[in-house]
Amino acid sequence: MPDLPNRQILLRRRPTGLVAPGDTELVTAPAPEPAEGEALVRTTYVGLDAAVRTWLNDQPGYLPPVQLGEVIRAAGIGEVVSSRCDAYEVGDVVTTLTGFQEYVIVRDDVFSTPIPGRAHPAEKVDQLAVMSVYGPTGATAYIGMMDIGRPQPGETVVVSAAAGATGSVAGQIAKIAGARVVGIAGGPEKCRAVVEDFGFDACIDYKNEDVAAALKRHCPRRVNVYFDNVGGPILDAVLGRLATKARVVLCGVISSYLSGQHPGPANYVNLLSKTALMQGFNALDEWGRFDEAHAALRQWESEGRIKARQTVFEGVDSCVDALNGLFTGANIGKMLVKLSEPASG
Amino acid sequence: MPDLPNRQILLRRRPTGLVAPGDTELVTAPAPEPAEGEALVRTTYVGLDAAVRTWLNDQPGYLPPVQLGEVIRAAGIGEVVSSRCDAYEVGDVVTTLTGFQEYVIVRDDVFSTPIPGRAHPAEKVDQLAVMSVYGPTGATAYIGMMDIGRPQPGETVVVSAAAGATGSVAGQIAKIAGARVVGIAGGPEKCRAVVEDFGFDACIDYKNEDVAAALKRHCPRRVNVYFDNVGGPILDAVLGRLATKARVVLCGVISSYLSGQHPGPANYVNLLSKTALMQGFNALDEWGRFDEAHAALRQWESEGRIKARQTVFEGVDSCVDALNGLFTGANIGKMLVKLSEPASG
Repeated sequence: MPDLPNRQILLRRRPTGLVAPGDTELVTAPAPEPAEGEALVRTTYVGLDAAVRTWLNDQPGYLPPVQLGEVIRAAGIGEVVSSRCDAYEVGDVVTTLTGFQEYVIVRDDVFSTPIPGRAHPAEKVDQLAVMSVYGPTGATAYIGMMDIGRPQPGETVVVSAAAGATGSVAGQIAKIAGARVVGIAGGPEKCRAVVEDFGFDACIDYKNEDVAAALKRHCPRRVNVYFDNVGGPILDAVLGRLATKARVVLCGVISSYLSGQHPGPANYVNLLSKTALMQGFNALDEWGRFDEAHAALRQWESEGRIKARQTVFEGVDSCVDALNGLFTGANIGKMLVKLSEPASG
Repeated sequence: MPDLPNRQILLRRRPTGLVAPGDTELVTAPAPEPAEGEALVRTTYVGLDAAVRTWLNDQPGYLPPVQLGEVIRAAGIGEVVSSRCDAYEVGDVVTTLTGFQEYVIVRDDVFSTPIPGRAHPAEKVDQLAVMSVYGPTGATAYIGMMDIGRPQPGETVVVSAAAGATGSVAGQIAKIAGARVVGIAGGPEKCRAVVEDFGFDACIDYKNEDVAAALKRHCPRRVNVYFDNVGGPILDAVLGRLATKARVVLCGVISSYLSGQHPGPANYVNLLSKTALMQGFNALDEWGRFDEAHAALRQWESEGRIKARQTVFEGVDSCVDALNGLFTGANIGKMLVKLSEPASG
């Protein structure tokens, strides 16, 4: 399969704040030939999450920073177009760290996974669902909510970035657990989606409401579980409204990924007065539980109790806009970029 | 037993910051006569902890605020001098909320407890030990360290207010668990006590050292457990040095009890990047585990593995100075005021 052009977005300069023109470069290289033990995957969708932005900073994390001149790292999904290994057949759907590029080599390692049910024809795979509710995003919502949040029937659960990929699923899981669920999102369109599409009991519009006052109104018996995707003043406001024995799930600090500056939440002292806990987690540490998470999410989805939405940009050249859009609030549900037409539609 | 004078310290005005002249008044009232079902206790020692100060503020807590005109509330120990109930005999040693006063009425309720082993003669009861390592102070250290901290052999544990009543015991428990233990205390005298008396591996003098730099030096493999009694910049510094899967035990925020203002710890974001937890607790919620805590502490104390110290002021009129001294760093070990000579010496 010679002469396949592979358009890629390379990192040229470390961004400060949003990724700016000149921080990245779109180049076209020939798609690599798979060596023995490898396969070539044509990227269909790239998924955006805040981690992608953190990898552009020159600071240690659970994966090393992207180096200047390298393709920007991101998780994605694609289809095998040629294979020289037993693990993959042409037509297989594969999730892997595709990065911002149209073709990628995979090997049979932990970061390249034939999706569950690969025996089924690729046409049957709902790649959008795999990249949102069934992927690491769904597993993150499941593990954070079930293991740390542990919502009980009748409890009040608050979820920030509630219209986002993780928050929307996390809140729906809490609903299934029998909790009353209040979202926090930015703007009336998102708040409407949170209530109407994702079935939350209420949603606070942090751009147009006083969050502390709204929490008091919507959470008369205070907050038993807070699933935090944002940090900053919203975290502080919810900490000010904790119930006794509350659980605060730290999933993200999107309010400060860009600046690297995080105002400390002064209301952390309520963790003491309310004998509450605040715990960070990384779903990738719980890789062994992904099967359980996906099985539960598939079951709930088939029962119509979990709904997923996606915001889909088109073309590799829109990857940077999609990444920036995460931080400017451009997405409802999972932010994806479609790089090629999936066989599975 | 008529005409016993009972000197008491009453709250006259809510203090701001340290308790000032005019906030309290020393009065002498006749000691009350016990009614049927009651006993009269002569206070021997009053114990000071930060909660005593918080009860002087007009804000809700796990106990209601002390009202103006009331005796200042505090836990203490004493000896029964007359009894009209089956629960107590003259000579019994009793722990109760004595308050800042020389005599107090007790009933057989949860706040008035004949000390373990009351069948033994009062002369044999080590009241100083009961008011420090065996009392709620020791139970607080035990429950916080064992249930939330969970130190493992070879781990690094940091304890703030390490020369204080709770911190000194918490650190010794972590040593028994096989951890390397680093204290944080104010001034060379306290740091010497932390290492020489309480057996910590090292102690950082926050008044004379850069805490973040000292943590880097003393905790080369970062901090697995932090037992926090102080909050403020020291909490923030330790959060900046957390190891993966670290546990932060929130036991107190003595740095801000007085002002009511608590700068938020900006490094809380490390709870996310290190998948760590921070949990507040109140040992009084775990009343049912006090027997277990005391049994363990007695065993360790008898083996010479737990040492307790006390700082003892004299006379009911020094109660306010002792309370203020908690916040100005006047004590090594438990801060007590001796109100009368115990039969048990």
